[in-house]
Parts: sequence; C-alpha cells; structure tokens
Amino acid sequence: MTAIHHIHHIPHSSAHAFCVDVLGRLGVPAEEARVCAETLVEASLRGVDSHGISLLGTFAERIHSGQMRPGRRPLVRREGAATALVDGQHGLGPPLARWATDLARDKARETGLGAVALRDANYVGALAPYVEAPARAGLLAVAAANSTPRVAPHGGREGLHGTNPIAWAAPAAAGEPLVFDAATGHSAAKVTQAAEEGRPLAPGIGLDPDGRPTTDPAAARAGTLLPVGGALGYGFGLLVDLLTGGLAGGPCGRQVPPVTELDGPYGCSFFVLVVDPASFGGGLAEAARSLAADARATAPAEGAGRVRVPGDRAREMREQRLAGGIPMGAGRWQALTRRLRASGVDPVPEVQRD
Amino acid sequence: MTAIHHIHHIPHSSAHAFCVDVLGRLGVPAEEARVCAETLVEASLRGVDSHGISLLGTFAERIHSGQMRPGRRPLVRREGAATALVDGQHGLGPPLARWATDLARDKARETGLGAVALRDANYVGALAPYVEAPARAGLLAVAAANSTPRVAPHGGREGLHGTNPIAWAAPAAAGEPLVFDAATGHSAAKVTQAAEEGRPLAPGIGLDPDGRPTTDPAAARAGTLLPVGGALGYGFGLLVDLLTGGLAGGPCGRQVPPVTELDGPYGCSFFVLVVDPASFGGGLAEAARSLAADARATAPAEGAGRVRVPGDRAREMREQRLAGGIPMGAGRWQALTRRLRASGVDPVPEVQRD
Repeated sequence: MTAIHHIHHIPHSSAHAFCVDVLGRLGVPAEEARVCAETLVEASLRGVDSHGISLLGTFAERIHSGQMRPGRRPLVRREGAATALVDGQHGLGPPLARWATDLARDKARETGLGAVALRDANYVGALAPYVEAPARAGLLAVAAANSTPRVAPHGGREGLHGTNPIAWAAPAAAGEPLVFDAATGHSAAKVTQAAEEGRPLAPGIGLDPDGRPTTDPAAARAGTLLPVGGALGYGFGLLVDLLTGGLAGGPCGRQVPPVTELDGPYGCSFFVLVVDPASFGGGLAEAARSLAADARATAPAEGAGRVRVPGDRAREMREQRLAGGIPMGAGRWQALTRRLRASGVDPVPEVQRD
Repeated sequence: MTAIHHIHHIPHSSAHAFCVDVLGRLGVPAEEARVCAETLVEASLRGVDSHGISLLGTFAERIHSGQMRPGRRPLVRREGAATALVDGQHGLGPPLARWATDLARDKARETGLGAVALRDANYVGALAPYVEAPARAGLLAVAAANSTPRVAPHGGREGLHGTNPIAWAAPAAAGEPLVFDAATGHSAAKVTQAAEEGRPLAPGIGLDPDGRPTTDPAAARAGTLLPVGGALGYGFGLLVDLLTGGLAGGPCGRQVPPVTELDGPYGCSFFVLVVDPASFGGGLAEAARSLAADARATAPAEGAGRVRVPGDRAREMREQRLAGGIPMGAGRWQALTRRLRASGVDPVPEVQRD
C-alpha cells in the first residue's frame, strides 16, 4: 500500500459527480454516464478497487480510441419468452449489462426463468451489483463475464481463460441478500499489487516462465496465472467462457484480444440468468436466511475472524467507505489524472477529497 | 489401496447384472433397477468409486430400512413452460434425477431454458451422467445435489454444507462433450481412504477438533472438512444448497439428516438447468471444441502430465475399465456383500470376476 500520508479520501457523492463529469466530457450521454458512475463508485465502496473509480482511466482511454462507443443501444438479435441474445454494439459495459439483467429479470417474472447472453459488451465492471438488484426483488441471479486470456487451464502453463468472474445473489428473508462474486482465475492486478508492495505471492497464484510454481510476483508476471483452487476454478472459468462468448457468439478464450489493444473491438461477453423462486418451492429466501445465520454462528477456525457469508465483507466495507470516503493513494490518483488528460479530458475536473 | 493381489476385476456387464439382480431381490421394479444399475456402474467405469457399485450397499440398507422407497413415481407439484417443482416421494434417486433431467431437457427444447427442482430425492449418485445426456443432444446442462452437512463455511470449524457437488456439460463440435463434475467441499470418503492407506492428507482438506489445519486423517475425521479452494468452494457449496433444498423446499445445510440415520427420510434435493444454445448465438459447440483443443494443446506446467479438459480423465478411465473390468479390492467386496446380507439379500448373488 502507498504510505499512509499519501492516502486521500473521496466522498462517494464527489466520486460519482467526478465520474459523471469526466464521462460527459468524453461525449457519454447523461443516462449512460450515470450508470457507469454508479457501477464504478459501487465497486470502490465495496472495496473492489481494481474495478472502482480507477477504472475510469480505462473507460476514458477506450472511449477516446473509439473501442467503447457511447450512445450505442443494445440490439436484441434473438428473443424467446425466457431467453434473449443481445448485441451490445461495442457500447459501454455497465448500461448494457444492467439492461440485459433487467430483461432477464422481466422474463423470469413471466416464465420463472430468464437468461440473456450479451456480446460486444466491453468492460462491465464488478458483477456483484448486477446480481444484487434482482435479489433485492426476491429473485435468484447468476452472472458471468469473460475477459483477456491470461489464466492457464489446470495443469497448463499458458493463458487460455480470463479471470472470468462469476457471481450469484439470493434474497434472504428479513435481511440483506447473499451476494457472491469471485474470479475463477487469479488476476494480474493481484500480482501487480504484490510487486508494488514488495510482498511475495501466496502459493498457487502463478507459474514462472518455465512453468514452475512461484511466489515471486515478477516471475509470475512474466509467466502464467493459475485458476483459483486448481481444477475447481478451471472448471468454472471454462464454464464462464461457454456461457458468455459461447452462448452469445462472441470471442472465447484466446480469441479475446489483449487488454493492451485499444483500437480494435474488445468483444467480451456477459451472461445473466434470473430464477423466480415462486416458480419452485417458494422457500428460497427463508433457506438463505437460515444458512446465513448458521454460518455466522459457526465457531471460527483457529486464527480466523468470525465467519462471514458472501456479501458481508463488501457490505461492511461499503458502510465504512460511505462514512469515511473512498481511499485513493496519491500515486493512483496521479496515474488516473494522467490517463484522463491523455484521453482528452484536460483539464481534469476537480474532486473534493480530504 | 488394498494390496495388488487382493484386487479383482468385474466386467461392467457382470456388474450391471449383479446390481439389477440385487435390486430386484430388494423389490425394486425392473426399470428403476436398470437405471440405478446404470448409474452405479457408470460411476465405477469413470473411476468415481465412491459413487460406484460399492454404493449398492447403501441402497440396499436404505431400501431395507424403508428410507428409500422403490416404485415411487415423481410427482409434479408446480409446473410452468420452463420450470417444474417435483416431489420425489423418497423414491430411488437415479430414476428420479434422470426423469427430472429429461423434463428440463424437454422444456429447454420448447422455451430455450428448462429448470427442475426435485425434493425428497435420496442419493442420486454421481452427477456427470445426468448432465452428459443433454449435452449429447446438443444442450448445455448444469446439475447440483445437496447432502449431509460436514463441510464448514469458509473460515469456520463446524460442518454446515454437504460435499454439495455441482456438474455441467456442454456439447463440443466433432467430439465428445465437455463434462465437469466436482464436489464443492472435501469429502469424508477421501479422508477415510487416506486413513486406510496410512497416507497424510494434502493441506486444505480438514481441521482437527480444535479448528487447526491438519494433514492427519484421523484428526480430520474427528474434526471438520473444508470447502474446496476456500472461499470459492464455499460460495458454490452455498449456492448448491440454495438451488437444491432452497428452490425445492427440501432441507438445506444442517437440516439435512446425518448419513448414518437410516430410518427417517433423508430428504436431500437435486436441481438441474438445461439451456438450448439455439435460443442464443448457436455457436456453443464450436466454442467448446475450440476451447478444448486449445487447452489440450497447452504446454504443461512443470511436473504435470498433458493438459486434460473436463471429462477427459473419466473417459480414459472408462475405456480402460470397459476393456479390463472394474477393479474391486477383496476387502471392499467383502464389506459390500456383508452389507447386502444384512439387508436381507442372502445369499448374495454370484458375480463374474477374475
């Protein structure tokens, strides 16, 4: 982490206003800018800083290069009572993914199930907020997104899948929804962070360029990232590519372009499934409440803090950051403003921070 | 492993005939006996010995005690174009789960998606064969089953979830389907096997009774099992309880009775989702082919064999055992015949073995 005296705190409302302002200057229509800002600020509030307001630099570069196209509406290419195939037309990920999720939710309300595959979606950001919205409406949701292939298949030493996150959320009676959001592959961002902090990696994250396990971040950066939990992460990472690019007809695995490529289409895909528990036994929210209560009441393993259920940690972080602001290291802020200026946002708007 | 001179090999057709014969003597109708035998023999052929023909002892005990009820038909309690809630009426798991999967497949062919939640299903056995059947018909399928709670939530030291397996299968153009089947929690069977073989456990499988990580199988047996891959396995294990007991209105988590209880209902649930790729982009099978080919062509990590995709290892094992028979240690065989006799199958029918 950057030394403590370099950390500023940005109130979430200022962060939101800043994102809307920057996106507006880049020609993003107001409603799209609002959804993008919400998505980035929400990730920052939940502590997912890699998908938070720092990602605004990525959006700016890609809007500037023409890879992300503001104002592109989702186009339904195929539709049934429970399903839709949507073409994102290389628009901005967050409004596209939210639109797809709302469509899946409406279909689930009609037929009990709704699934939407969205292609040419660009970065959708952290998945948790997409699945949490239907869960707040009493529905179960699962979402997935594919990305640049840097994670090896289990047993291999060459990247084939992205970090390929998958998320689910379920309503819980008399409480907050359960919200699970996990990468199926270890992320380059984690390795970079360890390198910056001079920390070794935990075992199982990366291989060096000769395919040997390493805890040296520099060696892992030059080598390959591994699936989370070995075969389990590989199995789900492969499923994510199949549900996203596979169902949507977008690129999968090695066909997804490198993140460093700014000009051609990025072309990653998003998938969302929504299930209405009322079409089944109807007791889902009560089951979720009971499973969460039992987990939270479980005695912790030696050396572990109290047991948390999916969503607890992000909610705690959110409350903390709603009150105290979003921490932003000086170095990170300078990097962001540099990227914004290079993308034509010059001068960079002011932001309130302590 | 039992010493090599104690291993017999049973031809798969003999194993099938043996299972059908035993189940028939226990009063199982012919068609149900055939499906159960296929499920058990198929697991043995694929190398999943914990769910193979040894499980016939479990079926016999539970049919004998009245916990599993031969001849019970699945009862549809709620139904929509894409969904169904099915009551298994404490019948035999394999015919119930196959029936539920066929129903989900038919709904997917009509509406693009089909999901069935099945409660009071008893042991359904290994999940792979259920999802593989729709994949062979060009469909994507996901299945899950819950079970006795012996796996702690991540960070905890008390069992809350079962091994809670989840499986998926996808068609692959010009090749065998991809078939993934994984427990989300480490299994007691694995710990027992290590104890019998006098081997230490790998790290991350179990905690001792004081909640400390252990590699001693006896300590883990007295303590707690862990989710596979930590938070990732916990997140999916919890999802499995929600999709199965949660949607079906059956028991979840600690409500699922211990496996040692033979008299009351076991009451575990099964969930299956089938997706017709033709309702989306239609390119799923080609994506699966390409992702599998790229994985198999990936250079292996140091010390690893060639990279396999989900389903490869089981298929190799299946070919080997179709040719050479299902290996069965003398000790295991004696344990099985003892359980069969105690369940009223006396004398135990002969089986051809080398």
